[in-house]
Amino acid sequence: MKINIHKNVFNTNEEYASEVKKILKKYNIKTFNLLSSPGAGKTTLLEETLKLLKDEYKCIVIEGDLATDIDRQRISQVGVESYQINTVKGCHLNAKMIYELLNDIVLNDIDFIFIENVGNLVCPAEYNLGEDHKIVILSTPEGDEKPLKYPVVFRNSDVCIINKTDLVKFVNFDIEKIKINLKKINPDLTTFFVSCYTKEGLNQWINWLKNNKEG
Amino acid sequence: MKINIHKNVFNTNEEYASEVKKILKKYNIKTFNLLSSPGAGKTTLLEETLKLLKDEYKCIVIEGDLATDIDRQRISQVGVESYQINTVKGCHLNAKMIYELLNDIVLNDIDFIFIENVGNLVCPAEYNLGEDHKIVILSTPEGDEKPLKYPVVFRNSDVCIINKTDLVKFVNFDIEKIKINLKKINPDLTTFFVSCYTKEGLNQWINWLKNNKEG
Repeated sequence: MKINIHKNVFNTNEEYASEVKKILKKYNIKTFNLLSSPGAGKTTLLEETLKLLKDEYKCIVIEGDLATDIDRQRISQVGVESYQINTVKGCHLNAKMIYELLNDIVLNDIDFIFIENVGNLVCPAEYNLGEDHKIVILSTPEGDEKPLKYPVVFRNSDVCIINKTDLVKFVNFDIEKIKINLKKINPDLTTFFVSCYTKEGLNQWINWLKNNKEG
Repeated sequence: MKINIHKNVFNTNEEYASEVKKILKKYNIKTFNLLSSPGAGKTTLLEETLKLLKDEYKCIVIEGDLATDIDRQRISQVGVESYQINTVKGCHLNAKMIYELLNDIVLNDIDFIFIENVGNLVCPAEYNLGEDHKIVILSTPEGDEKPLKYPVVFRNSDVCIINKTDLVKFVNFDIEKIKINLKKINPDLTTFFVSCYTKEGLNQWINWLKNNKEG
């Protein structure tokens, strides 16, 4: 049995985030912090992403969840190493959690770390984890007005994935309206329209990840 | 122009909640705190609920939102009085907000107050607002494992509405599994299966509300 005892080495979340950033830079690892409402499809997107990346790149996944490791088990079945952080009642991951985890694992040869944050479109947006990019995922059944209603997460992210585009014809979601609303909140956002069911748009997203790694 | 200046009359959220409860009891008003992820369909459910109640009962709506009054405008179009609370970056409503609002409005003759909380399946569950019942809404595209992953909100609620049942055939959601998962987390939960699109299940929910008022 291994017991890890961690002291508070730093004081603020930003200090921990900046330390995480240094570690990731040292090992040349690209890290993405995935943010969305519960059920927007973060885990399914990760499964599809990992299937397309894992033969070429070493990936690991950090799963944030209040209470279970259901998502981590799904990631394991894709054949990718994954680590669980349970926040119990906590509504977001913080940089200290990531810092402590990185100190416990071997970082050599890792190309990508994907962090699946707690499903919450509000709180996680305010906590840097030392990641390279925040990725916000919005699924079409949630509605095209969400960038206006939850502006912080869309403003703080570099990429937006509009997920479940296969459901557009069954729900109240207008592709032109979402483009306008995203532009209003964050004109610099890179947006992908993806369906993990039909695989539409996955290649563009994967290419963006690869360019990000190689660039 | 009217400026309301409110002092901190009480110290804790629970003190404010208990005061709200007293006021609501005095006026014989039934109050429901609606909790869900963003995009689960709280506002649409409210629109349909109000259409079926408003000729018989006086209802008002309190809308919680970070940044907009989009939902309040929708409620107004149904012809029901509604009040907006913008939390800016706040991830939940608290009882002080409700207390102050109730002190500013005329409460005579009101039968029902519906509070639409900020879209967030984590934080709002921990804050009593003095309501009679917390109602958690889960939409089928979010997945049938959500009660296990977000247990607090399902444990703290009295009613669960499984919404968007018309989408079941297009998404990965098993009605038998959700029943098992809900029972595991909260065996006392009253559950309704609703589609605001086909109107399935709305009558049962409306009858529950009416019985709650008359009972």
